[in-house]
Amino acid sequence: MPVNLQPPRREDLWPVPGVELGWAEAGIRKAHRKDLLVIRLAEGAAVAGVFTQNRFAAAPVQVCREHLAAGPIRVLVVNTGNANAGTGAPGLAAARTTCEEAARLIGCAPRAVLPFSTGVIMEPLPVDRLVAGLPTAVGRLAPGQWLEAAEAIMTTDTQPKAVSRRVTVGGHVVTLTGIAKGAGMIRPNMATMLGFIAMDCSMPRPLLQLLTEDIVSQSFNRITVDGDTSTNDSFVVIASGAGPLNLLAVSDAAFAPLREALAEVARQLAQAIVRDGEGATKFIEVRVDEARSVDEAAQVAYAVAHSPLVKTAFFASDPNLGRILAAVGNAGISDLDPARVQLLLDDVWVVRDGGRHSEYLEADGQRVMKKAEIVVHLKLGRGNQSTSVWTTDFSHDYVSINADYRS
Amino acid sequence: MPVNLQPPRREDLWPVPGVELGWAEAGIRKAHRKDLLVIRLAEGAAVAGVFTQNRFAAAPVQVCREHLAAGPIRVLVVNTGNANAGTGAPGLAAARTTCEEAARLIGCAPRAVLPFSTGVIMEPLPVDRLVAGLPTAVGRLAPGQWLEAAEAIMTTDTQPKAVSRRVTVGGHVVTLTGIAKGAGMIRPNMATMLGFIAMDCSMPRPLLQLLTEDIVSQSFNRITVDGDTSTNDSFVVIASGAGPLNLLAVSDAAFAPLREALAEVARQLAQAIVRDGEGATKFIEVRVDEARSVDEAAQVAYAVAHSPLVKTAFFASDPNLGRILAAVGNAGISDLDPARVQLLLDDVWVVRDGGRHSEYLEADGQRVMKKAEIVVHLKLGRGNQSTSVWTTDFSHDYVSINADYRS
Repeated sequence: MPVNLQPPRREDLWPVPGVELGWAEAGIRKAHRKDLLVIRLAEGAAVAGVFTQNRFAAAPVQVCREHLAAGPIRVLVVNTGNANAGTGAPGLAAARTTCEEAARLIGCAPRAVLPFSTGVIMEPLPVDRLVAGLPTAVGRLAPGQWLEAAEAIMTTDTQPKAVSRRVTVGGHVVTLTGIAKGAGMIRPNMATMLGFIAMDCSMPRPLLQLLTEDIVSQSFNRITVDGDTSTNDSFVVIASGAGPLNLLAVSDAAFAPLREALAEVARQLAQAIVRDGEGATKFIEVRVDEARSVDEAAQVAYAVAHSPLVKTAFFASDPNLGRILAAVGNAGISDLDPARVQLLLDDVWVVRDGGRHSEYLEADGQRVMKKAEIVVHLKLGRGNQSTSVWTTDFSHDYVSINADYRS
Repeated sequence: MPVNLQPPRREDLWPVPGVELGWAEAGIRKAHRKDLLVIRLAEGAAVAGVFTQNRFAAAPVQVCREHLAAGPIRVLVVNTGNANAGTGAPGLAAARTTCEEAARLIGCAPRAVLPFSTGVIMEPLPVDRLVAGLPTAVGRLAPGQWLEAAEAIMTTDTQPKAVSRRVTVGGHVVTLTGIAKGAGMIRPNMATMLGFIAMDCSMPRPLLQLLTEDIVSQSFNRITVDGDTSTNDSFVVIASGAGPLNLLAVSDAAFAPLREALAEVARQLAQAIVRDGEGATKFIEVRVDEARSVDEAAQVAYAVAHSPLVKTAFFASDPNLGRILAAVGNAGISDLDPARVQLLLDDVWVVRDGGRHSEYLEADGQRVMKKAEIVVHLKLGRGNQSTSVWTTDFSHDYVSINADYRS
C-alpha cells in the first residue's frame, strides 16, 4: 500500500500540445500487460536528459546519450519487462534495432529516437516482440493518453504516477505533464527510475539541459528506497515547441516561475516513487540543517536514509532513535563534533548537544513513530547549508518483493 | 539458523595462562541472562585494541582509548543489554564508575580497567545493576570459563562464538583463545562487534598494536551483514605475558607463524559472526581480483556485499545476477571499463567481458544459488590486487529481528 498517494485521475492529466502517446501489450515479459510506450514529439521540440551514473549503464542509456548529442529528437520508445542491461554488443544492437523500427514507422531518422528499458538485468531483450508491438503503439498515438502512458512504464509500482500542472508565465499558460515509475533501486544518480515531463513551450536545448540538471538535484536525486542504483535510470524533460512561450536565457523573467512549476512536478513525481517504494509503510523526510555545504548535508541525510537499522526501526514504529545517531556518526564527516548535534522527530526534541534531551520522553517519540509521515530533523552545528532526502522504511514486503521479483 | 556454524564445545576451548574469566546475571536489560563479563589479566600482560570509527563512539570506547594510552591493563569489563552510547556526560560517568568499582574489587588502578558495552543505544546505562553484579563475576574468576564468557557477551547472536588454537612457534607451544559477538550492524570499522583474543606470550605493546591492526584488516574489517556500523565496536588482543615466548620485533622468526595463527582465529571468529548474521540463510564470499589496489578491491566487494537487491536475490536463491553487475557499476570506480569485468559464481562463468557469457545457462546459476555457501568471484581487469569480503543474504528474519529488537 503506497503511503498517502492517490492514483492520478484521468481528468487531472492535461495533454501537452506537441506531444502524443501510444501504448501496446507487446508481451515482452508477461502477456496482457501494457509494456510498451511510444511518445511522438512535434518537430522543433527540445529534449534534455539526465542518466544513471552506474558504470554498467544499460544499452538504451548508451544509445540515448549518443542520440541526444547528435541532434533533434522526435520519438521516445519505452519498454518494461527487460532492462537490456549487462547484455553487451547484442544488447546495443537490440536498442539500435528498436530505434530503426520506430523511425521507419514514424518517418524520421533512427538517431531521432530515444530508447528506454526497465526490468530484469542481464537477460537478452526480446527485440522481436518489442518491434512487433510498435505498430499498435504508433497506431494509438494521441495527446490524451498520459494515464495509459504512466501505466505502460510500471514495473513493481503498485499504481501509475502522473502529475499535471498549469502555470501562467510571461502572460502565457504553459501545461506541464509528467509520468514516472519506481519503485525499488531508488537512490541518487538515480534508480530504476524513469521520469518524463513535457511542457508546451520552446527553449534552446542547452538551456533545457541546464534546467533539467538543476531540477533533478532537488527531486529525483533526493529520493532513496534501498540505496541501490540502477543501470537504466533516465529523467527526460521535453519542451515541445508548441505554445507561444519561448525562453532564451536564464535571465528571462519567465524562467524562474517555469522552473518552479517544473521543480514542483518533478518533486511530486519523485515523492510518489518513494510513497510507492517497495514495501513502504512510511514516508520519511530526512532534513539536515547547519551543514557546511549542501553536499555534506546530503551525505548525512543519505547515511540516515540508507541505514537498514534505522529503516527497520521505522517499520516497527520503534523510537530506537540511537540508531539515527549511529548513522550520523557513520556518515564519513571525520571532524563532526557529536556534542553539537541536535535531533528532532517532527516537533519532538530527542537529542540535545549529542545526547538524549533531558526532557525527552519515549512516549513522545513513540507518538511520532506511529505516524505514516515523519520528519527526521538533524542539525549539525557546523554551518548554514541544508538539504532534504525522502525515503521509506524497510519492511517484510521489501524482502518479499525483491526476493520474488522474477518469479 | 546460523549457516554451517557449530556451537563451540567446552573441551575445544583451552585456557590461556595468565587470563581468568568470570560472569554474572546482572539484570542489565533482562533478568536471568548472562550479561556481565570480567576478564582479569596477569601482571605484565600487554593489551592492544581497535575501535569503531563511528563519530558517535560510545562512552566505554572513549574510556578504552584513554586507558589504553595511559598504561598497563589488568581488567576488562563487558556488559550487554545497553550500549552506553549517545548518552553524553552521564554515560561517560557511568563508564568511569564501572572502572572504579572493578578496580576496587580487584585491587588495581581504575585506569587499568577497560569497559565495553553492547546493546540498545541512547538509553541510560543502569550502572547500579552493573556494579551490583561485579562481585559475583569477580568471585567466579577462573581460567576455564571461555564458553561462559562467549555466552555472556551475546546479544542477538543465536549461539556463542569462541575459537581456540595451539601453535608451536620458536620451539614453544602458544595457546590462542578468542570470543566474539555479532550479529547485526556488522561492517568494516566495524560493527556491534566485540572480539577478544588472548595468547600466552609476551610482546611489547606497540608491536601488539601493529599486529592487531594488521589482523583486523583481514578479519573483522572484512565482514558485513547490513552495512551499518556500531558506536561500540571493539577488538582487543591480549598477550598475557605468561609462557616462555617473548617476541620483540616483526623481524623475529616466530612472528610470522604467530601472526598466521592469530589471523586464523580472528578470521574464524569474524566469519562466525557472519554465519550467525541476523536472519542469515547463506554465507557469501565476495572475492575481487584484478583490482588496482586492495582498497579498490574492497570498495567493489563492499558495494556488492551491501546491495539489498543482491542480498535479497541470494535469499531467494534467484540467479538474478545482473544485480551484481549493477552493484559493481555503483562502486564508485569512475574509470571502470565494464567490458573488462568477469563474474563467476563458484565455478560457473556468468559474465564474460562485461556481458552475459554466451555459454552461461541459468540452470547452472540456479544450481549454485541454491547452496548455503557461495563465492561471488569478480575480476576487474585493472591490476593484480585482490581481497575478499564475507557477508550474508537479506531475509525476512533480518527485518523481524531488527524491527523487534527492543521488545
